[in-house]
Amino acid sequence: MAADLFESMRTMRTIRRFEKREIPEEVLLEMVTAATWAPNGSNSQPWGFLLVREPGLKKALRDLYLARFEPAEAAYKAIAAASGGMNPQQARMMRGARYLAEHLDDAGVLVFPCVDKHRYPMIFDEQGKPRDPVTLYATIFPAVENLLLAARARGIGGCLTTILRFADAEVREMLAIPDHVETTVMIPMGYARDKFGPVVRRPAREVTYFDRWGGTLAGG
Amino acid sequence: MAADLFESMRTMRTIRRFEKREIPEEVLLEMVTAATWAPNGSNSQPWGFLLVREPGLKKALRDLYLARFEPAEAAYKAIAAASGGMNPQQARMMRGARYLAEHLDDAGVLVFPCVDKHRYPMIFDEQGKPRDPVTLYATIFPAVENLLLAARARGIGGCLTTILRFADAEVREMLAIPDHVETTVMIPMGYARDKFGPVVRRPAREVTYFDRWGGTLAGG
Repeated sequence: MAADLFESMRTMRTIRRFEKREIPEEVLLEMVTAATWAPNGSNSQPWGFLLVREPGLKKALRDLYLARFEPAEAAYKAIAAASGGMNPQQARMMRGARYLAEHLDDAGVLVFPCVDKHRYPMIFDEQGKPRDPVTLYATIFPAVENLLLAARARGIGGCLTTILRFADAEVREMLAIPDHVETTVMIPMGYARDKFGPVVRRPAREVTYFDRWGGTLAGG
Repeated sequence: MAADLFESMRTMRTIRRFEKREIPEEVLLEMVTAATWAPNGSNSQPWGFLLVREPGLKKALRDLYLARFEPAEAAYKAIAAASGGMNPQQARMMRGARYLAEHLDDAGVLVFPCVDKHRYPMIFDEQGKPRDPVTLYATIFPAVENLLLAARARGIGGCLTTILRFADAEVREMLAIPDHVETTVMIPMGYARDKFGPVVRRPAREVTYFDRWGGTLAGG
């Protein structure tokens, strides 16, 4: 599989609408393989990628997701209203988010990137809490980005969501995730019905500081 | 700039030895631009990339780093000794980590990827603590991976380190990082003296589960 690195990153829009089409197992394994190439603490590789494809499970997760999405959507709209309303980009994003919530089971796979504490015990304390969340999450989210980039090369997109964080106990029970495994985001993924294309971002110069916070380039 | 996506990911070894050579500003901005293309919560783009190049600052950070590295190194070795000693890969990694600690100022730039709370206030509570660390770190570490991949295409490597987490107050004072900005990892980066090459990882099949934790592929 060949793909241009910069073009893949530059055009990796969030995808929230999917074709109802299965993703072949070899493609799923290619995505996970790319994820495993990511840097991680002490090469401990404590990740586990739980891929949900069973239609009944996807529907049950959609119901759980939608029930937790609706209060989050209301809160987001209330915050936006208090500061003068949503701009067109925010309104488009919220429509997409609602579509996703209602059609979550259209995704070919729901990806749960997890961290197995047994594989990297030194970053957890005696109570099983991360000593420093930075160490924990620095070891899973670079892998998640690799997974998304590898998928992009196959026309497969997705969306990092944290809505199911509000239903973690139910998710764990539904998917048999044991206590020694940390859940993170959930990523619905599938062949993109939305178009990939250039992302809209602030320029690098506005978010780059030199030597001290707020420090600008010598050249201005 | 052209580079193959899969080849870049597959050969992005951790680099801990650098040529003493400056990285041009346009290359640094290209790296940050790639970082900004990453997915992030609500397209809030709350990141700030603080790039330390000043020789005096790099030396001061090296001293701080080395002082915090040594107890961490001792703890790592003690844990390894208790479980039968380090394997050759671990021993090599620890030698590299010590070399890095002693020569941190050889790096062309010390990168501090940060999150500005003012740009994404809804994920922090009234006390300024993240409501959920997953939401916070899911919005910065995909960008960090993009930054590393873009650097890789230019022969520039680096290493995610959390050692300076133990000296966060000193780092904040040295680099004028305000309270409303969250620090994360620190990444020394420079033209690689170590060789890039294929990373060593467990196969995808061992870290992929289907439908339920522990669930294997239909095919086996």
